[in-house]
Amino acid sequence: MPGGVGLVETRRAALFGPDRPFELATGERLGEVEVAYETYGELNADRSNAVFICHALSGDAHAAGVHEGDDPDRPGWWDNIIGPGRPLDTDRFFVICANVLGGCKGTTGPSSPDPETGQQYGLKFPLIQVRDIVEVHRALLAELGIERLLAAVGGSLGGMQVLQWSIDHPGEMDGALVIAASGRLSAQNIAFSAVAREAIMRDPDFGDGDYYETGKRPDRGLGLARMIGHITYLSEESMRQKFGRRIQDAEMPRFGFDVDFQVESYLHYQGQSFVERFDANSYLYLGRVMDYFDPFGDPVHLQEQISGSGTSFLVLSFDSDWRFSTSHSREITNELRLAGASVTFREIESPYGHDSFLFEIPDYHATVSTFMDRLADEAGIAGG
Amino acid sequence: MPGGVGLVETRRAALFGPDRPFELATGERLGEVEVAYETYGELNADRSNAVFICHALSGDAHAAGVHEGDDPDRPGWWDNIIGPGRPLDTDRFFVICANVLGGCKGTTGPSSPDPETGQQYGLKFPLIQVRDIVEVHRALLAELGIERLLAAVGGSLGGMQVLQWSIDHPGEMDGALVIAASGRLSAQNIAFSAVAREAIMRDPDFGDGDYYETGKRPDRGLGLARMIGHITYLSEESMRQKFGRRIQDAEMPRFGFDVDFQVESYLHYQGQSFVERFDANSYLYLGRVMDYFDPFGDPVHLQEQISGSGTSFLVLSFDSDWRFSTSHSREITNELRLAGASVTFREIESPYGHDSFLFEIPDYHATVSTFMDRLADEAGIAGG
Repeated sequence: MPGGVGLVETRRAALFGPDRPFELATGERLGEVEVAYETYGELNADRSNAVFICHALSGDAHAAGVHEGDDPDRPGWWDNIIGPGRPLDTDRFFVICANVLGGCKGTTGPSSPDPETGQQYGLKFPLIQVRDIVEVHRALLAELGIERLLAAVGGSLGGMQVLQWSIDHPGEMDGALVIAASGRLSAQNIAFSAVAREAIMRDPDFGDGDYYETGKRPDRGLGLARMIGHITYLSEESMRQKFGRRIQDAEMPRFGFDVDFQVESYLHYQGQSFVERFDANSYLYLGRVMDYFDPFGDPVHLQEQISGSGTSFLVLSFDSDWRFSTSHSREITNELRLAGASVTFREIESPYGHDSFLFEIPDYHATVSTFMDRLADEAGIAGG
Repeated sequence: MPGGVGLVETRRAALFGPDRPFELATGERLGEVEVAYETYGELNADRSNAVFICHALSGDAHAAGVHEGDDPDRPGWWDNIIGPGRPLDTDRFFVICANVLGGCKGTTGPSSPDPETGQQYGLKFPLIQVRDIVEVHRALLAELGIERLLAAVGGSLGGMQVLQWSIDHPGEMDGALVIAASGRLSAQNIAFSAVAREAIMRDPDFGDGDYYETGKRPDRGLGLARMIGHITYLSEESMRQKFGRRIQDAEMPRFGFDVDFQVESYLHYQGQSFVERFDANSYLYLGRVMDYFDPFGDPVHLQEQISGSGTSFLVLSFDSDWRFSTSHSREITNELRLAGASVTFREIESPYGHDSFLFEIPDYHATVSTFMDRLADEAGIAGG
């Protein structure tokens, strides 16, 4: 891939501290909140070109470019959409991505020390909601001197953050790009989430979440949770094409209980590599955030907030996504339109299932480009 | 439900022993094989009315009626289809159901003692194939003096046994009813199977399968495996209708990591009740049997076996089944027809997903009745 944003680094901002605790929607408080974030491109003089990226469950602040010393072929997780000339064009836009509250990639979460005790929170970390994640993003923007976004963009849990943000603070963004998201998890979604959570909590090394100082981690459970997740991220068809019934590193089956089929080997690898980079408690918190997400629960409030907000919505789904299928995006679209919002909805053809939002699919990227260009033109941002 | 077969009991037959070991398809041997089975109805004088039921992964020999002392409202697992006047009409047919080889409900499996050591097999039990299960069924029939079946009937893994039986021993049945089955698991099927297997094998109480004398059992892992399985047995729509986003025993969410949504409570219950009645090693063996199942792997052999066998096939799928979707049944139908078999294929409308084969769905039962009546008429069996 040519171009890209080049060398980048993750910065950290201490946004809340002893003299200014962070208050959650429930009224509970966090004594300290630090946020890890990255930025790409330049903020323009009238601060009108900021685009905020909200990441999904296992994402982080490193959305684009390469860190010093890292493999240049392994850039940030959404590098294909962010950069000069790319849909989120860093020649025109100032792009910001921050690790979410509750995460484990530099932003305060259950693996952070509780300032009151000096011990890592574990399950003493308060149960957060999507709106709490959004409030921390907003505090970061305030720190950066940005009062309004040209757009907020996110896939999956990221799209849920964009949706909540647009409802809670309707005047704060020109465009809201809600991709492969859900406004309300289905019973089946919650079922998968429950099984993944059980896998972690049943691991004897989980120890009620207080595993940080035991020298053990619930790696078996977290790996299993990730394997279950991965099945739902791929479509049945993409699994068939990618693996079929092929045997790993052999022509003939070995017939046994060890990994034998390629698809088993793939899931194993995904599970193993995940436990090396992710915290089990963060997985629990961010999974549960999605289960309880219900921004359309109060239609009156919704209409008051949305109608006249001036925010244009782009709601995108992928036809092979069975985790958050097109019906989820249609429901988001319907709810927003009922509340008086201006919404463009598109279902994109793609074989890659839920993971499609991470792929460089021409129709998908063209749709995002067109939408972003229109926002930029309407805001009078140069270039394009 | 009126009628039914009334009081029944499970019998046991010692089919293979010291002077006659059971030889598996791989050439390995089992020193002893006992089989648990039940029968309903009467074998007619010319022994032409026998119908064999092949059960699914977690089934057993107790397909119909009630055991002495049991709750009469909780009859055998397929009671709605077996009995006087029911599709598998015990006024006309002699119905037999046997627990499968590798199971844990009275037929020899990994929890049985190895006659060579006196210890329970655990993972020393040989890896079995569907054809081995079929050979044990056939040995039972020989013991009962039955040389030919009017029909073999089975759903899911049961349908796979029927299919293998019809291919390996083409002259032995007039009718083969292959319901909600697969002739070849997809990558996604194998992926779910792999995760369930991992859940069991990662449980520290699994102890490489030698848990029988430790006082511990891998209940956490087996429960988790069953929860994962259950998600695939129900359709997304039936989960939505049955549970939606309702909270268990409350109006408002409790917000936490414990069971809160009804669908979580349901899965928990399914997992818990399963570990009380099923052996984790049997789950591993019977799951792996399905992964490796590939009866259509050798088309030449298939054609030799099938063409001119005189067996009529009824292949049924359910439109909401996403574990073994209609495409699996279509593939079975195509392969059988290519080999020269006479096949009736029908997709039944039903909201219940893979579990549909266990439900009393009028169109489904009528289709089975019609097929069975035709077989009976052609065989000159009285009644109907």
